[in-house]
Amino acid sequence: MAQQVLTGARIATMATAGGYGLVDAGVIALDGGTIAHVGAELPEAYRGWPQQDLEGRLVTPGLIDCHTHLVFGGNRAQEFEMRLNGASYEEVARAGGGIVSTVKATRAASQQDLIADALPRLDALIAEGVSTIEIKSGYGLDRDTELRMLRAARALEQQRPVRVSTSFLGAHAVPVEYDGRADTYLEEICIPTLRAAHAEGLVDAVDGFCEGIAFLPDQIARVFDVARDLGLPLKLHAEQLSNLGGAKMAAHYGALSADHIEYLDEDGIVAMAGAGTVGVILPGAYYTLRETQQPPIAALRKHGVPMALATDCNPGSSPLTSLLLTMNMACTLFRMTPQEALAGVTCNAARALGLTDCGQVAVGQRADLAVWDVQHPAELAYRIGFNPLYTRIFGGGS
Amino acid sequence: MAQQVLTGARIATMATAGGYGLVDAGVIALDGGTIAHVGAELPEAYRGWPQQDLEGRLVTPGLIDCHTHLVFGGNRAQEFEMRLNGASYEEVARAGGGIVSTVKATRAASQQDLIADALPRLDALIAEGVSTIEIKSGYGLDRDTELRMLRAARALEQQRPVRVSTSFLGAHAVPVEYDGRADTYLEEICIPTLRAAHAEGLVDAVDGFCEGIAFLPDQIARVFDVARDLGLPLKLHAEQLSNLGGAKMAAHYGALSADHIEYLDEDGIVAMAGAGTVGVILPGAYYTLRETQQPPIAALRKHGVPMALATDCNPGSSPLTSLLLTMNMACTLFRMTPQEALAGVTCNAARALGLTDCGQVAVGQRADLAVWDVQHPAELAYRIGFNPLYTRIFGGGS
Ligand SMILES: [Zn+2]
Ligand SMILES: [Zn+2]
Repeated sequence: MAQQVLTGARIATMATAGGYGLVDAGVIALDGGTIAHVGAELPEAYRGWPQQDLEGRLVTPGLIDCHTHLVFGGNRAQEFEMRLNGASYEEVARAGGGIVSTVKATRAASQQDLIADALPRLDALIAEGVSTIEIKSGYGLDRDTELRMLRAARALEQQRPVRVSTSFLGAHAVPVEYDGRADTYLEEICIPTLRAAHAEGLVDAVDGFCEGIAFLPDQIARVFDVARDLGLPLKLHAEQLSNLGGAKMAAHYGALSADHIEYLDEDGIVAMAGAGTVGVILPGAYYTLRETQQPPIAALRKHGVPMALATDCNPGSSPLTSLLLTMNMACTLFRMTPQEALAGVTCNAARALGLTDCGQVAVGQRADLAVWDVQHPAELAYRIGFNPLYTRIFGGGS
Repeated sequence: MAQQVLTGARIATMATAGGYGLVDAGVIALDGGTIAHVGAELPEAYRGWPQQDLEGRLVTPGLIDCHTHLVFGGNRAQEFEMRLNGASYEEVARAGGGIVSTVKATRAASQQDLIADALPRLDALIAEGVSTIEIKSGYGLDRDTELRMLRAARALEQQRPVRVSTSFLGAHAVPVEYDGRADTYLEEICIPTLRAAHAEGLVDAVDGFCEGIAFLPDQIARVFDVARDLGLPLKLHAEQLSNLGGAKMAAHYGALSADHIEYLDEDGIVAMAGAGTVGVILPGAYYTLRETQQPPIAALRKHGVPMALATDCNPGSSPLTSLLLTMNMACTLFRMTPQEALAGVTCNAARALGLTDCGQVAVGQRADLAVWDVQHPAELAYRIGFNPLYTRIFGGGS
């Protein structure tokens, strides 16, 4: 990989807690896939490297979408339309709607189908400067399909210049064939599949959906215990629709993140702060579900819980593939600041994935950058449905 | 312009009231800039024309954004950030924020500046299949700047393959130099500028902002009387923040549309239905302002008022440049159906602009089409922050 120097950059390093870490008229030296220098001056050692003048454009870390269900079969547009035409929940269910329809379509899809369907969504994210994306399993709910989803997620790294972090989400829902037998599902399918996926090198983290309609904290704990034995980091969908204490439990396990957290209470916040667990805010699902309970942003801020933001891209509750719009939603709907929104898709998103080599423009970090045609970083969250990306640098290359 | 035939099209003609007017495996013959044939079969007469197989892709009318303030100077990202950092309304005003800042930046901008600033926003809309866009004046509030805004709007037609419909919005706000003297502003600036703009051929319609913070119905009526004398069609920003009876008054003037209408009452709805006045729904402003009063969609539907949708693209209350996201917002926030949303950016948007030659895929209409990589038209409103446009045909050309 080549050496190069970017000059004339307005850099939001995101390397200063609570600020953009702005450097004006800055220079960045990229040594292959790694950032070798960032600052206002260019040291002697880099003066012979090829230079690119960014003419005052804003440089941020490459964006990180730290919570997605990007790989799935089918879509739920007709269910969306049925509901808006007044169909009841029962009528939608009778027509085969809901997560059941996505599980059915995903089971029917080959690995190639899953990749082909995911690519346009991935391309939409990449077009907005995303360099790292987390992708979960969880629409298979049987051994073969869960493994196939994870293989498809991994394979996306070969199809596009992007880094994929996988999460095993076998504990996403109880499949119909195990209706009323959640514990048996965990024992017979979820846990053995986790072991198999881990053995195949397909798992970067283990996730679960802790909710009355999915799994209770004790059931999640069984999966987490296995994950811990395997040395895998943990994440949890928690407190989205009600407060079951999932985030607190996740914090006690030392989880990387608790996600959604609309119904999180002070107790859970304190536990997360103590454990360094990131709160992942997902405004796309809040918006789509017309939720009215907002995540406790002010309390998270007060207790110093790092906040990340993600699309939650999925076919039911968040068919969203724009991280910039996610930033705007976090500001507009939840009153996060533009600085918090940018931290949420850079440094704090990296932390939510347990990655220490991305999310900041700093020496030693990966050379994953986004260059924007804007004057001030607040513009990234301000506009709605507009993409000011000038160019993306991934691993030092374009 | 060439003759061509599109085959293998799934056509949402939008030519059937209350439906998509779907034609499967359809053909469309384009004779230069005009649609010569639409149907399931290709008549003998067109069989010799060059054919393009769309392989089952969805074809809709080219989209129409019927309410925008696309031309303006500056942006309000820093005001957005100030507010989210807790600044009060007074602090923002003291820092020069609000519409005053946009008027100042617009007055300082040359026609070339205004065009250059508008182009990226226009490009974002065109990239989503927009073929016709309405653009208002209203950030000059003095003669020279109002005329310059309209000239810039007209000039955009020379810069991009798009059709621009202009609205004179001198009655947008009272400029600071006329503070407390709204009537004098109308007499000394607004009405003479309207006459001058009309004489220069810059005005396709006349608009106003009827609200306690702008102009009262009697004041709007003075502008409307002049517009009527000039033979210009009318539009009105009405009932956005309160109910002043503006929509009813606009209907009595035979206005093309009443826009925003969150606070519209049954009386106004009946008047609009009687006059054929279109209700233009602007979810971007509702979303940005965190409004809670929803426009009366069910009542509009019941009384048969045609509903259009638009971005309201403007730097303060709706920095939105995605008509697809606007469709999703209308469905998600206001429970419009995907069919109503598509009608809102095609046939009903044309009607809101008084245009009879676009907005449907039908014989005699302009050959302005959007071709989408989706299977069902409901998908256009279902996804969030995703653009499935395959190609756009404008005036018969790509
Ligand atoms: Zn999720
Ligand atoms: Zn407006």
